[in-house]
Order: sequence, then C-alpha cells, then structure tokens
Amino acid sequence: MKNAVTIVEMGLRDGLQNEKTVLDAETRVEIARRLTNAGVKRLEVGAFVSPKWVPQMAGTAEIVAQSFALVKQGVIPKKTEFSVLVPNEKGMLDAIASGVKEVAIFAACSESFSLKNINCSIDESFKRFEPVMALAKKHKIKVRGYLSTCFGCPFEGKVSEAKVIKLAQRMYKLGVYEISIGDTIGVANAGQVELMFKKLKKVVPVKKLAGHFHDTRGQALANILAAYKVGVKIFDTSLGGLGGCPYAPGATGNVATEDVVYMFHGMGIKTGLDLSKLVDLNPMVAEKIQHPLPSKVGKVGVLKPLGKVSAQN
Amino acid sequence: MKNAVTIVEMGLRDGLQNEKTVLDAETRVEIARRLTNAGVKRLEVGAFVSPKWVPQMAGTAEIVAQSFALVKQGVIPKKTEFSVLVPNEKGMLDAIASGVKEVAIFAACSESFSLKNINCSIDESFKRFEPVMALAKKHKIKVRGYLSTCFGCPFEGKVSEAKVIKLAQRMYKLGVYEISIGDTIGVANAGQVELMFKKLKKVVPVKKLAGHFHDTRGQALANILAAYKVGVKIFDTSLGGLGGCPYAPGATGNVATEDVVYMFHGMGIKTGLDLSKLVDLNPMVAEKIQHPLPSKVGKVGVLKPLGKVSAQN
Repeated sequence: MKNAVTIVEMGLRDGLQNEKTVLDAETRVEIARRLTNAGVKRLEVGAFVSPKWVPQMAGTAEIVAQSFALVKQGVIPKKTEFSVLVPNEKGMLDAIASGVKEVAIFAACSESFSLKNINCSIDESFKRFEPVMALAKKHKIKVRGYLSTCFGCPFEGKVSEAKVIKLAQRMYKLGVYEISIGDTIGVANAGQVELMFKKLKKVVPVKKLAGHFHDTRGQALANILAAYKVGVKIFDTSLGGLGGCPYAPGATGNVATEDVVYMFHGMGIKTGLDLSKLVDLNPMVAEKIQHPLPSKVGKVGVLKPLGKVSAQN
Repeated sequence: MKNAVTIVEMGLRDGLQNEKTVLDAETRVEIARRLTNAGVKRLEVGAFVSPKWVPQMAGTAEIVAQSFALVKQGVIPKKTEFSVLVPNEKGMLDAIASGVKEVAIFAACSESFSLKNINCSIDESFKRFEPVMALAKKHKIKVRGYLSTCFGCPFEGKVSEAKVIKLAQRMYKLGVYEISIGDTIGVANAGQVELMFKKLKKVVPVKKLAGHFHDTRGQALANILAAYKVGVKIFDTSLGGLGGCPYAPGATGNVATEDVVYMFHGMGIKTGLDLSKLVDLNPMVAEKIQHPLPSKVGKVGVLKPLGKVSAQN
C-alpha cells in the first residue's frame, strides 16, 4: 500500500483571514466540527493576533474552548489536533490561556515582506520566537513553523533558495516539530518546487516538511504533485479554497482541500478525508462568506455517471 | 537544454464551441492573428459541422480563408499550422474546399458518449473515417485524431484503459499523424494519466501522442505534469481557459494556455509562446464572450515585483 498524506486544514485561519466577511465564532466552530466529521485530524482554528489588525480572527479563544468542549462531549474525535497562529509572546500567552496544545509561528524569507507584513526584520522575528519557544517548552505545547514567501516575494521578486534553506535550518534548530514551506503569493512552479524540496530535505528530515501552496496562478496542485514526488507527505489546504474568490483578480487563496484530496485519492493515496462530506460543506461556507468558493471539485463533486445509453435512446 | 513542448491552441474551436456567446468570423480571425503573434504555431480555428447544431462554428471557411490571406500578407508567420475539425465526409469536403492543410477527426472511448454526442456507435464512427482518410490522402491533408472520454464518461463512468489503448491503436493505423488523448469531462487524476500514457506509448510512439485535459475538477495542470513526466510533449490548451466560466458550476473548459505556459517556462521548458502577449489578449476575449476567463495567470500575470522595502518605510 502506498503511503498516505496528511492534510493540514487552513480554512479557518489562512482562509478566513483573507476573506472580507467576518464569521462569528459559533459559525467557525460549526465549520470545525464538520471538518473533523469529514476526517480532518489537524486544523488551524485561529490566530492570537490583534483583532484591530485581523478582525476575522477575533474570538479565537472561544473557538478553542468550544472545540475542546465538543471533544469532551464526543462530538469531535479525541485525537484531533487544533492549532492556532501566534505572532509573538503576547499571542503565546493568550494561546496558553486558551488551553490549546499546539501553536504555529511564522517568519518570512524576504526582508521586504517581513518588514511590510510584521514590521520587523527576519532576524528580529527570530528573536521574538525565543520567549515563545521557551513558553512552549514549559507548557508542553507543540510548535509548528511557517516560512512564507519561499518561492517569491511581491516586493523583491526572486527569493534565493539558499536563504530559504538557511532559514529552514534555523527554524528547525529552534525546536519546531514541522516546517511548512509557503508559496505565499502563489508564484511557484513545479520545477522550482522540486528543486527546493530536494535541497530542503538534505537539511531538515522530509517527514518534518510540509508544502503550503496558494493557487494564485493555478499552479498549486501541480506544485503539490511535484513536492509529493520528492517525498513531501504533509500539505496545507483550505476548505473550498477559502481565502480566494473566483471573481477577484487579486484574491489569493490556499489550494482547495477538495481538489488536493481528489488528486491523491485518484492516485490511490490515502488522506483519511471523506471527499463527499467536504464537498457537502462547501455551500454552507460559501453562503456565510457571501461568494462562491474557488474549489472546482467543491463545485462539481466526483463523477456520478448518468447511466448507460443504448442505441435506441 | 531540456526538450521543448508543443502547445496546440484549442480556444477558437473547443473553447468557443462551449461558449454561449457566438463570435463573428472577423473577431475570431483577429484572435487567431494575435495568437500567432504570441508565438502559437498550431491552432484549431473551427469546425465544419452543421451551424444548426453548433452555431459557434459558423463561418469556419471564412476564418480559414482570411487566416491564409494574412499569411500571404506576411501578418501571420508562414509555418503556422491551421486545423479544422471534421465530423464526416461532408465536413471533409468543406475542409478541402476551404484550402486548409490539416483536419482533425474524433471518436469517443465510451459507447454511450458516442451515441449521445455523434449519434452512432464507436465502430460506426470509425467507418465514417474511411472516406475522410481517403480524401485526405488524395488531397495531401494531414489528419489529427482525437479520442474523447479516455478517462471517464458522463454516462458510463469508468472507461477501461484497455479500450482506450485499442482505439488509439486502431486510430493510429488509419494514418493520423498524431492522437490527442482527451479527458473530455475533466475527471482524470495524475495517477490515472501516468498509467494511461505509460501503456499508450507502448502501442503508439510517444511523439505522436498529445494530452488534452479539461479543468473541470482543477486537475488539468497536475495531469499535464504527470503526462510530461512520462514523455508526452504535445498539449492541447485554450486561451484563457475558453469554454469554461468561473461562475458556472458545470462549465468545463480546456486547461488555460497561460497556466500551462507559466508552468513549463518556470520548469525551464520552452513552448515558443510569449506569455505576456497571451495575458494581454485575455481582456479582449473576455469582453467578447461577456464573462471573465478562468485562466489564473491570465488574470494576475507573472510576478512584477513592487520593489524592495527598507526598514524606514
């Protein structure tokens, strides 16, 4: 039997934070519940960032609390791993208070992006990680690391492979259990992805590497296939491609969970997810965010044959 | 240097025949001119089918005539290969009259699809090819063959690989110079594509095989990558993904030329096409067909870096 891949569901965080419509905590918990019911075992449910900057992530503590309550009630499976994004020590303290057992930290691979996005240099962002990692150790919280703009930066354009490799090593040494390599602006191509992961896996065990692709230029699924072919088995995806919009030219969503699952299942590779349940969840989410979701499998589903046609028809 | 791939542009035929808005011949010639100006060397410009059944293809003879006139005037490069689809002997006679030097014939791999689509069995469709091939030989016209529903049928569901292999062999023996293997309803996945072409190239030289993928389930680019990896170097694509619509759940366009070219160029594989010229052509075509085109690269283009950001910004 072929190896399975692990899907890390981003919809409630990376997806929703890029949507104009703010969803209340109750709706987000309901989406989390239905995702886990469709077999999702790892999901990022929010971020402990200032609601002034990211209003979409307000109520993250409530979502964590309610999700754990549903686990206790047996509604959500016990082994489900919930994670939240934390930008700094303050966010980490909120995360600890929420009772979450996993957090994610992030750094950019481009100085310009780091300055624009989090208002500090890459070096400074790594300094901010120190107290976060210390607190994580103390409270036995797992930490996942994101590296963004690994394949290109909206300001600087090309990002050097060597820089990505170096930062991945540096992040790994911090003690993160996994590093997600992000194509933040959806600019990567399959050739670049193949080369990057071939080099990355020389410095970080490939089991600890995840691929995080946005579909801005329609390349995400081909990029995932390219990464899989060099041994990557963990992929970040968003329900329905949340965070993008089929109408808006600039909207840059994560790759759609359904489209990725469709490919892997077709290849005989298990994901543990129930594709039809994910497809069924699309209309509710589309209604809540008030526009159609970009996922193509989410729209048309798997093939349901209409039945044989005979010459007499 | 890596091998180049050949793009066969489908927009003016497979694309437009699936659009609600009918474009006049003049507009279609202008699109053909701009496509060749962007480096397209092979394009299907229409079909000699009844305008009662496919009104979008009316005026094909005019398009052929005007395209050749532009070649004569030096506006379109001499080596450009124009092709038209012909369903039967009548269509072939129209094609001969138009002066075109290449035609394409098509058969399905599913009996139900054949019956519904062209109202005859697969065997009967092959019988219809006999006079067409005889005329082609007599008039020194190249013939390309399409096999449709190779990866799945809307009526029967699964299509057996063995059947596709057998029909590809049968079509090749007819004397077609190339066979385009079609995922007509966009249902294929990368694993299936890899297996299919590995088997196909045992019976038909891989140089004579083309991949024709629709993006109904977002799989087309990954499928092209999978086919390329087993040696396929010819792909059918549609400008902007013509024939699909980002709004409509059922709209099933060809894969977008721009998205395919973006991937191959990124991989260091030449296509001979000028991506920016293709992207520039998108708005005009979108205006004519009265809806946005599905191509993602067509929407956002290649990355144009905004410029470095310094800490003082």
